[in-house]
Amino acid sequence: MKVIIPFKLKNPKSRLASILSLDERIELAKLMLLDVVEVVSKFTDDILILTPPNAELDLEFRIEEDPRDLDSAINARIERDTAVIMADLPLLNEKVLERFFNSDADLVIAPGRKGGTNMLLTRDERFRVSYHYGSFFKHVSIAKELGLKVEIFDSFYASIDVDDESDLLELLMHGDGKRSHEYLKAIGFGVDFSKKDPELIRSKKG
Amino acid sequence: MKVIIPFKLKNPKSRLASILSLDERIELAKLMLLDVVEVVSKFTDDILILTPPNAELDLEFRIEEDPRDLDSAINARIERDTAVIMADLPLLNEKVLERFFNSDADLVIAPGRKGGTNMLLTRDERFRVSYHYGSFFKHVSIAKELGLKVEIFDSFYASIDVDDESDLLELLMHGDGKRSHEYLKAIGFGVDFSKKDPELIRSKKG
Repeated sequence: MKVIIPFKLKNPKSRLASILSLDERIELAKLMLLDVVEVVSKFTDDILILTPPNAELDLEFRIEEDPRDLDSAINARIERDTAVIMADLPLLNEKVLERFFNSDADLVIAPGRKGGTNMLLTRDERFRVSYHYGSFFKHVSIAKELGLKVEIFDSFYASIDVDDESDLLELLMHGDGKRSHEYLKAIGFGVDFSKKDPELIRSKKG
Repeated sequence: MKVIIPFKLKNPKSRLASILSLDERIELAKLMLLDVVEVVSKFTDDILILTPPNAELDLEFRIEEDPRDLDSAINARIERDTAVIMADLPLLNEKVLERFFNSDADLVIAPGRKGGTNMLLTRDERFRVSYHYGSFFKHVSIAKELGLKVEIFDSFYASIDVDDESDLLELLMHGDGKRSHEYLKAIGFGVDFSKKDPELIRSKKG
């Protein structure tokens, strides 16, 4: 099983810019990538971090730079038994991925919110990705046009791609032990459980 | 298996008040309840709609009115093999519930966002619920204090309790065939897939 993890460090997680500095967002993005790689590496050594050129990623993993758009860069690398897992899914754990990798459909696809595709696994080299604009539904259509058996992988933890403040709250509540979770706590974030709906808080700096 | 579905019709779904009238919110709440009951009824006939007094619910189900707060009303009804399933989970389907009811832990618990508990199933009559203020984590603690074996039920579809606009978007995208989904389409809602992230839209009335 080959696992492709797309990653970019240029102004990452821009929707968090109102509560995290650029340096903090870069650090968070790197730590989430490490959280994802750590759990994926329990299932395969064939992990590939796919990034735009000149990423200057200081990581001890196989990194491939590709100047093309995300879809083209991924599609050029799809073979039989290829998974694409997003780098901002810090709540993935071994139990989730065991269920994911053990699914036996031709295309296994995990929805994120807003019509996104957070993880997919194709056992057919003809499958092609097309991210954004409701990619989950596009991917299901593409697979069905190829006559592939599709399995929707139903997971709360896989659905949490950290994109906005509400996702940070989920990471803080459910991410015990993850590097990204420890980092957020270290820079002052926490959860206020005194409200009917828990809220994200940040203690004053300095 | 007894299944308790709490429900109230007084100003339901108030966070949707900016885009839905009170009548529309009442109709949506009722239809989501019907969507939940329909799929649950494939697994058990022992379904109980729990509601505050004078609900005037015109439904052909077993309805019990209880003047107490939600926790007390539910706890008075917990026996061995009791599930509590929220009424605003229209994306539940047979596959999700089959996995849920077949889990063999003492407490099976499905997280919602914001620390919520969207579904739980206890096989021990000593378990007690405590909703709000991060109920998911409270329920796990309560079960562990009783020495119960806890299983976290990891489901995207069970995690979508329809509460705000972003949840309506999920129902519109993933809810094909559900009564609540058909209703939203009938009153003009749809999804604009031309944006990188799909957006909720409503066509003009009249």
